[in-house]
Amino acid sequence: MSGVFILSKFSSSIIAKLKLLLPKVQFTEVLLSDLSPLETAEIIIGDYDLVGPHLYTLPKLKWYQGTWAGLDSLWPHILKNQLPKFPITRTSGDNFGRIMGEYVVGNIVFWERNLFKMRENQNNKLWDQNVCEHDHRTFADLEIGILGIGSIGNLIGRTLNYLGATIYGYGRQETLQLENEEFKHITEYFTRANLHKLLSNVDYLINVLPKTEETVNLLGNDILKTCKDKNVVLINIGRGSVIKESELIHALKQKWISGAILDVFETEPLPKSSELWNFPNVFITPHVAGNSRSQDIAAKFKENYERFLKNEPLLHKVDFCKGY
Amino acid sequence: MSGVFILSKFSSSIIAKLKLLLPKVQFTEVLLSDLSPLETAEIIIGDYDLVGPHLYTLPKLKWYQGTWAGLDSLWPHILKNQLPKFPITRTSGDNFGRIMGEYVVGNIVFWERNLFKMRENQNNKLWDQNVCEHDHRTFADLEIGILGIGSIGNLIGRTLNYLGATIYGYGRQETLQLENEEFKHITEYFTRANLHKLLSNVDYLINVLPKTEETVNLLGNDILKTCKDKNVVLINIGRGSVIKESELIHALKQKWISGAILDVFETEPLPKSSELWNFPNVFITPHVAGNSRSQDIAAKFKENYERFLKNEPLLHKVDFCKGY
Repeated sequence: MSGVFILSKFSSSIIAKLKLLLPKVQFTEVLLSDLSPLETAEIIIGDYDLVGPHLYTLPKLKWYQGTWAGLDSLWPHILKNQLPKFPITRTSGDNFGRIMGEYVVGNIVFWERNLFKMRENQNNKLWDQNVCEHDHRTFADLEIGILGIGSIGNLIGRTLNYLGATIYGYGRQETLQLENEEFKHITEYFTRANLHKLLSNVDYLINVLPKTEETVNLLGNDILKTCKDKNVVLINIGRGSVIKESELIHALKQKWISGAILDVFETEPLPKSSELWNFPNVFITPHVAGNSRSQDIAAKFKENYERFLKNEPLLHKVDFCKGY
Repeated sequence: MSGVFILSKFSSSIIAKLKLLLPKVQFTEVLLSDLSPLETAEIIIGDYDLVGPHLYTLPKLKWYQGTWAGLDSLWPHILKNQLPKFPITRTSGDNFGRIMGEYVVGNIVFWERNLFKMRENQNNKLWDQNVCEHDHRTFADLEIGILGIGSIGNLIGRTLNYLGATIYGYGRQETLQLENEEFKHITEYFTRANLHKLLSNVDYLINVLPKTEETVNLLGNDILKTCKDKNVVLINIGRGSVIKESELIHALKQKWISGAILDVFETEPLPKSSELWNFPNVFITPHVAGNSRSQDIAAKFKENYERFLKNEPLLHKVDFCKGY
């Protein structure tokens, strides 16, 4: 083995974590200023936007482990008539479900209790208990819809359900065996055919769907109108493509939704010209809800590396047909 | 039965919830302008500060249910040599554990991810991913000490443990059977004798202790110095009396603790003159972490009311010796 080559914005911290888990393996940081080591590499760990341009000039490559889950920045580099012969695996799994779940939970608490307003009041040395509704809702009072119930959405749903929330799931499978252990936190399952019904029955709508042909503008075409009666809050931690920015702004102005907690956008970074910055009932975070942390990349790599050595099937292999 | 009399800041919403649960019972709101109905009352639901002054002029009273858990505002009205003959019950139980647990969870997420800073950045239309440490901690990376492991502290601990945190408990019992179901989320138990050791081993220290002789200034006398190496964040949702304000400010200035999330204070409302308002690493909320919601008061009353009718022991009866 020639060791493992790392090409990432976070190479040094990833290597530090890898060395803790696999002390006998040689890890080499590849610098953007000298990509020649890639020519001899058999195993690469790297960011899709950095490794992508070189995908077809890696003569020795046997396996490429990406450093995060979403493949948006990989696709432009994939030739449809010449798919890579080596496996590409994503860093995915429980880590994102946990991290994104914590983001969701924290934000819902802050929203329900109006804690941002308390922070503002602190700046004015103002003690005002009425900022928070005295009989405010808790998770047990909330119905929450989750768009996307793969490993990430499922773990988020399970956490919210543990805290007391009623969970509705949305996915592309026609039916779901809700009695299965992995889905038992889901009270009812919805698909595109009855998406309207889901939207009219939730307090929070959480999107964790990846960008695929089927999900682009799924929440567009005025479908959010059905959210109106429940004052739904949209939490988007999937992809900005799930609704055109102009349509989202329209839904906010029409009060079809009562607010939005947004981590992903049609264009990132969100341009300064975007109206979204200005809504007091919108909270904008810069695509950090599901950081792919170095310690998680290292742990997931280790799992796959052991499989690789034993010629066992790798986990989270990119499926070029499904698109994730 | 003469029905139930309610004397509370939130009488009308409490009565609305009571009527849903006990439609056959007569509930009467007592106004501060005319307290005469209290003279005939057999059952009262009321705030300690409002009912307290009349405790010894309630000739018919058989049972008084308080509207929240902490008894600070009851004690000044209790004559030590003439304890009330009727039972006083607190509104306590899972409701506070859940509500305060949500407050704790939300605040820890916001703290770890620096989400307040993102809100500030939003005001400046600034997209800055570096605000949040890329390899930030999750609950699974945190060791959390909970001062007070009664029903509230225990439920908070169980929730944090479900999310992945390692939990240390502190209480006044000499030993604790950690193998018992109710304590199995606790990794290690501490008492006053080894409080130092607890403080030097946690990332977050959560105080939920009531105000008693034993807890006054428990965190004072420079004991927070032992927190220094772990950059501990103090979350106080118990009582402000657990540390003198001047000592807390000293600990913050000395950087013995890296920050504080404070819902309770020595003096409430927190005076405008308090230095605490000014620390950027202190988040101040106006005693709202554990609201006694109308729906919970009604539910807890119903439980006790059914026991009362059957002459069964009431739940959460005030113990004048223990002080809660």
